[in-house]
Amino acid sequence: MDTSLEPAYPEVAPGARPDAAPLANPGIGASVRRIEDEALLTGTARFLDDLQVDPLLHACFVRSPHAHARIRAIDATAARAMPGVVAVYAAQDLYGEITEWRMPLGFPLANLPADTTPFVLATHEVAFVGEAIAIVVASTRHAAEDAAAAVAVDYEVLPAVADCRAALEPAAPPVRLGLASNALQEYTLSYGDCDAVFADAHTVLQEDFHVHRGCGHPMEGRGVLARPDPASGELTVWSSTQLAHELHYTIAMMLGHPEDLLRVVTPDVGGGFGVKFMIYPEEIAVPAAARKLGRPVKWVEDRREHFVSAIQERDQYWSMAVAVDERGCVLGLRGRMVHDHGAYTPQGANVPYNSASSMTGPYVVPAYRLDVAVAYTNKVPVATVRGAGYPQAAFVMERLLDRISATLGIDRAECRRRNMIPAAKIPYTKPLKSRAGVPLTIDSGDFPALQARALQAIDYDGFDARRQASRARGLYRGIAVANSVKPTGRGPFESARVRVQPSGQISVYTGALAMGQGIKTTLAQICAGHFGVAAEAVQVIAGDTAFIGYGMGGFASRQAIMAGSAVDQASARLRRRILDAAAVLLDTLPDELTLAHGEVVSRSGTGPSVALARLAMLLKGVPGYALPVPGDPGLDETVHFHCDAQAYAGASHACEVEVDALTGAVSIVRYVAVHDSGRIINPVLAAGQVHGGVVHGIGNALFEWMGYDDAGQPLSTTFAEYLLPTAPEVPDVEVIFQPSMTPLNPLGVKGVGECATIPVAAAVIGAVEHALAGQGVRLSEFPLTPMRLLECLDAADGPDDIAPAGGRA
Amino acid sequence: MDTSLEPAYPEVAPGARPDAAPLANPGIGASVRRIEDEALLTGTARFLDDLQVDPLLHACFVRSPHAHARIRAIDATAARAMPGVVAVYAAQDLYGEITEWRMPLGFPLANLPADTTPFVLATHEVAFVGEAIAIVVASTRHAAEDAAAAVAVDYEVLPAVADCRAALEPAAPPVRLGLASNALQEYTLSYGDCDAVFADAHTVLQEDFHVHRGCGHPMEGRGVLARPDPASGELTVWSSTQLAHELHYTIAMMLGHPEDLLRVVTPDVGGGFGVKFMIYPEEIAVPAAARKLGRPVKWVEDRREHFVSAIQERDQYWSMAVAVDERGCVLGLRGRMVHDHGAYTPQGANVPYNSASSMTGPYVVPAYRLDVAVAYTNKVPVATVRGAGYPQAAFVMERLLDRISATLGIDRAECRRRNMIPAAKIPYTKPLKSRAGVPLTIDSGDFPALQARALQAIDYDGFDARRQASRARGLYRGIAVANSVKPTGRGPFESARVRVQPSGQISVYTGALAMGQGIKTTLAQICAGHFGVAAEAVQVIAGDTAFIGYGMGGFASRQAIMAGSAVDQASARLRRRILDAAAVLLDTLPDELTLAHGEVVSRSGTGPSVALARLAMLLKGVPGYALPVPGDPGLDETVHFHCDAQAYAGASHACEVEVDALTGAVSIVRYVAVHDSGRIINPVLAAGQVHGGVVHGIGNALFEWMGYDDAGQPLSTTFAEYLLPTAPEVPDVEVIFQPSMTPLNPLGVKGVGECATIPVAAAVIGAVEHALAGQGVRLSEFPLTPMRLLECLDAADGPDDIAPAGGRA
Repeated sequence: MDTSLEPAYPEVAPGARPDAAPLANPGIGASVRRIEDEALLTGTARFLDDLQVDPLLHACFVRSPHAHARIRAIDATAARAMPGVVAVYAAQDLYGEITEWRMPLGFPLANLPADTTPFVLATHEVAFVGEAIAIVVASTRHAAEDAAAAVAVDYEVLPAVADCRAALEPAAPPVRLGLASNALQEYTLSYGDCDAVFADAHTVLQEDFHVHRGCGHPMEGRGVLARPDPASGELTVWSSTQLAHELHYTIAMMLGHPEDLLRVVTPDVGGGFGVKFMIYPEEIAVPAAARKLGRPVKWVEDRREHFVSAIQERDQYWSMAVAVDERGCVLGLRGRMVHDHGAYTPQGANVPYNSASSMTGPYVVPAYRLDVAVAYTNKVPVATVRGAGYPQAAFVMERLLDRISATLGIDRAECRRRNMIPAAKIPYTKPLKSRAGVPLTIDSGDFPALQARALQAIDYDGFDARRQASRARGLYRGIAVANSVKPTGRGPFESARVRVQPSGQISVYTGALAMGQGIKTTLAQICAGHFGVAAEAVQVIAGDTAFIGYGMGGFASRQAIMAGSAVDQASARLRRRILDAAAVLLDTLPDELTLAHGEVVSRSGTGPSVALARLAMLLKGVPGYALPVPGDPGLDETVHFHCDAQAYAGASHACEVEVDALTGAVSIVRYVAVHDSGRIINPVLAAGQVHGGVVHGIGNALFEWMGYDDAGQPLSTTFAEYLLPTAPEVPDVEVIFQPSMTPLNPLGVKGVGECATIPVAAAVIGAVEHALAGQGVRLSEFPLTPMRLLECLDAADGPDDIAPAGGRA
Repeated sequence: MDTSLEPAYPEVAPGARPDAAPLANPGIGASVRRIEDEALLTGTARFLDDLQVDPLLHACFVRSPHAHARIRAIDATAARAMPGVVAVYAAQDLYGEITEWRMPLGFPLANLPADTTPFVLATHEVAFVGEAIAIVVASTRHAAEDAAAAVAVDYEVLPAVADCRAALEPAAPPVRLGLASNALQEYTLSYGDCDAVFADAHTVLQEDFHVHRGCGHPMEGRGVLARPDPASGELTVWSSTQLAHELHYTIAMMLGHPEDLLRVVTPDVGGGFGVKFMIYPEEIAVPAAARKLGRPVKWVEDRREHFVSAIQERDQYWSMAVAVDERGCVLGLRGRMVHDHGAYTPQGANVPYNSASSMTGPYVVPAYRLDVAVAYTNKVPVATVRGAGYPQAAFVMERLLDRISATLGIDRAECRRRNMIPAAKIPYTKPLKSRAGVPLTIDSGDFPALQARALQAIDYDGFDARRQASRARGLYRGIAVANSVKPTGRGPFESARVRVQPSGQISVYTGALAMGQGIKTTLAQICAGHFGVAAEAVQVIAGDTAFIGYGMGGFASRQAIMAGSAVDQASARLRRRILDAAAVLLDTLPDELTLAHGEVVSRSGTGPSVALARLAMLLKGVPGYALPVPGDPGLDETVHFHCDAQAYAGASHACEVEVDALTGAVSIVRYVAVHDSGRIINPVLAAGQVHGGVVHGIGNALFEWMGYDDAGQPLSTTFAEYLLPTAPEVPDVEVIFQPSMTPLNPLGVKGVGECATIPVAAAVIGAVEHALAGQGVRLSEFPLTPMRLLECLDAADGPDDIAPAGGRA
């Protein structure tokens, strides 16, 4: 990455659909600086642990050390007597506070039994190491931790099962008492006549793949601060979450707390990555304890807790066959995928469905059949992490395309091009439906063009010279390209309220949620363009239920689309109202007026003007006097932008690596990410998300390994064991936007957040395999740690039949 | 008043316009019990002084002991050193906190210079006894008071002027340094050819009248609690005010505080009566001190402070002549009125204008000319108290009608009837405009019918027998009737937001303000009728800026009209949305459905149903899933009801008194109040307001005397000196509603709050004069305390020419 002080301006190629109507909003398209950064850079940002409420109590949780056990008894007598301890609450101590004891299913519309979610605190059974059993509240965190260790839980240890394939064996012990089967779901996604195409195919290839478990690991873990006001009954809950309004709903429902007396606020959030797209038991237990005590209580997750209680992802075993014709065109895919869901289904079972339904990516696959088995295991529950099942599927698909290329002797890029959905066929509806039952329609894009741009940018054709230079230095060099597409901008809606205050301040309130990606800047920019002010003149309040009545939050690469469109429409409405009102006051026509620098001025530059502040003061109304212009008072417009269709964002990543066969070290020497993200609101911010997504994908591909032993004991609970990529492991990433405008929203924007993560493992591991092509190494899994790569090299059965010569080979 | 536990149900006569369309809302018209009362009766209501914020500091103010003085120096050294004292801030100590130092003019559209309002804290001059100079903050109120006494202020005492007539003399000292004249305003209201009608009149009568100064005296005085959150910058201000949103605006503006970081909340408010229809210096100084200290600070006005710093009213001197024809019909009125405005104009100069423009009341006056002089004096500033200038004018007009009756030998009621605007001439536009420049149009009503009903109810014709019975007991008995009309429902708008929560709770948020009159019950009742629930199932949050973005508040008998209509319309819209959404879910037509007991049910009683709670849960949206019905999410509707025309509410009060000529005691033995308040939403609540208004008027008429000596020193600063009516002084009040529906709002309602106060002094003093008619007593002023009545009797010049025989005499 460019480390100079000036941001590296990414390339924004002309849109693939240059006929798209230009936007009137001059705020869109400029790389304005982030309005978030001054606070972040000067240390005045307020993450959850920075919040000070006086006097404050601190909480920690008693968590299960066993992967599966019956709780016979909990004795907190000693803990309660320890210095500084205010309370120790096990489940039975909070029965009066919590009216709904079982966590709700995050997606209540999913076809799952409701009783597969955990309780707020475990009552009679724990099903994974880390499950919360009791909350300890003390005057300091240290006192709380010491007391938590002194809570005596009498466990009857039960058999556990850690591997999802083993969990599905008939003799496997139940992951939870009373489960008739550890199979949460078994279903088949299919279309076309798979058996027929396999029977008639020119070539059939078969391979097994495994994607290992990993975590989200935002820089800031989870955290909750609850402040009750015993006199008024008001309860304010701050949480480092991606879902402020859903948390408001859930706390009100589970604590039986009046909605009017509850406010949920998200402070600065240090990353989410899907981990915080969940309502967690701790977010219920902390407010319950605080309300019961009548005092503010704060809990901040430590890193070890994140490893054992924040949701995880990725565990999947695929056994796939592909049928192709003589040109390498895929005729059909079939196989089985086993997905590890951990001990509970707090959010439903959307991840395996996403993997299963997205496997074909940007490619044409005439026939498809995937048997899906979703298994409970005695591990941390699984829900969405950035990409939400797509990276696994892309990895499997792209590996299969490499197998086809190798078998039929077709260049890997050419093989992909032959299989791609051509631009002329878009919009393209896949013969599958989303888990919500909606057809999967790729609304816009040009996948072959994205790949061509990536190959050009990485100089695919000039690879051989670089390979030879590396070999001269004793290193193996490889190159690969991988493609993906993801629907972005999940609905059903997002809210935006734009208000001009009597001070002249322009405020934007939204149900969207800022978690580090710069969404406040993006929204301020969209709003500012309508009012003729700089983005930093707009105040954005996101994820605070006091300011807007409904909202969704941040997930599924949706915010620029959904919140951006809502802000755009609310701003446009408010601008129109301002011009209309000013025209009455100034005795002119609205069309003669425009907005500049916080004033309504005449377009001609010669007429009278009125400051926004004065207009807002007049329109708020003076008690007893008529408003100076007809219509509703105030300058305040709310829009709920709704759209259930999703904008498909394509990506083509090209990657070049050097591999040291002696150490197993993989060095990514070149990385090009070409993205169709629709219209780009702020190129630097969008590129920042691509950078982050690529780094996330590199971690997934090469380092991040959340291990469990057979008894369900976690093997990696520190960053010494679970390796995240750091600066030396991260290459410069060349980001190129080659947009096609989606017709699904007024801005023509698509999501970015997850899209850059999806093809990374496929590209990186493809390049490693290409580098080692002469070594007979076949790579069918990730992460590919140095140790694992050395194992693969050791196990390789001799020179491979793929000649490692040139990019095109 | 009826003191039984069951409320006395007032009579509601059929409307004078029975053709008015009936309302579909079954909640309207029933005397449901007040939803406010459980908390009030069980001691769990929270008035300002009940609010507990921990740890809390207490404030009191250093106030001027001089009516006029220059401040040479303020030395707080000793005070700051006293135990428990946290801070003493004079003006210069808060310059950094307060960006606008002068209080804004409450009615900025009034044609007044802006520099006639006080500063937050006096800087170099004080202009009335009680003006705040410094704020003292300490750990207890006692410590703060002790320290306030220790603040050494070096005053140069300046000449003061306490009488408004004296203040207008050329040689009068200026009320404030630099004032070129103590005349704040001098203007003439006039129409018709007054000089001509007086020249040609059958009879011309002339008299001087005086209405003395009084206060508002709500049971709860003023009070402010400000809680800053130094970390977030949020500032929450609780105030016992009638103007939450205007206070929000003013604090933000004067403290330069970001609007988004400010919340104004009104707790339970123990009465307002116009005294709290003001933004006071203390409401700025307390938040400023709290923010500077970073700690919560509370100030609660004590009763003595209320006497010397809460606004006052009523001081007026009228010198009037009336020209009549031989039938006693008024041909013209002319004269001069001098109004005492106190030392500043915090709210503009609306009271004298109200008096001047309302003098003709419900009567036809063909020609009118009133010279108005508004004078500054070194007394507490004047603004609106219940009735806002109308009681003074009604007193003068009704006294003049009595003089006409006496002079021409016409029965007093008949004389009034002859002069009344006949029902057939309504709507009737007076040849005057409001202070906002709007024509004064009486929209509806039948004044002769109201008086006829009052005379019938009090048995005017049977008075003579009662008079003789009283005389047999040594008491003089008199009877009188007085009429008034007041425009009610001042605009420009009021806001209402109605929301159904996922718990099923129906919440109403409004900019209206509850200050004891039962407006929460009224609004709940209006809302409940649309949803098929009881009023107590509706939660009303009034006067909290966190819940609704714009609002006006409680003043000018407006809330049932403005907020009631807003709630009615918002509820109707939400009901329509609910039925439409439920029809989609239940696969039926909206017209097949209705709402009952928190559920949408089929009108036939046989179809499927859906609970409001479930509907609200579904419509809040589930992240990632389409809303189950088309359209915006949520169940939340906001309406700003706006209306600049006012609904005219008429009243006719008949009163009978017994007077003890030895002691000067006046006993009100019968009291009938007939009111046209439009459609009655809750008869018991409306009657309660009439009761309160009559009691307020009785206090004004007979007891309340806010005295000042010539040097501007207040003479009545306790309830031992300033007498309020108590239970023994208050008669049973028979309340009769004889409504005419106003076309100005969808409910047909009119205001009640002030209307019952306006004619009381005229009726009571008219009855006293009637009782003493044989004694040669002419009563031209109020209050008429026993002592003052004895003085009048002593000064009487012998038997009057009015025979005290019978009601009709």
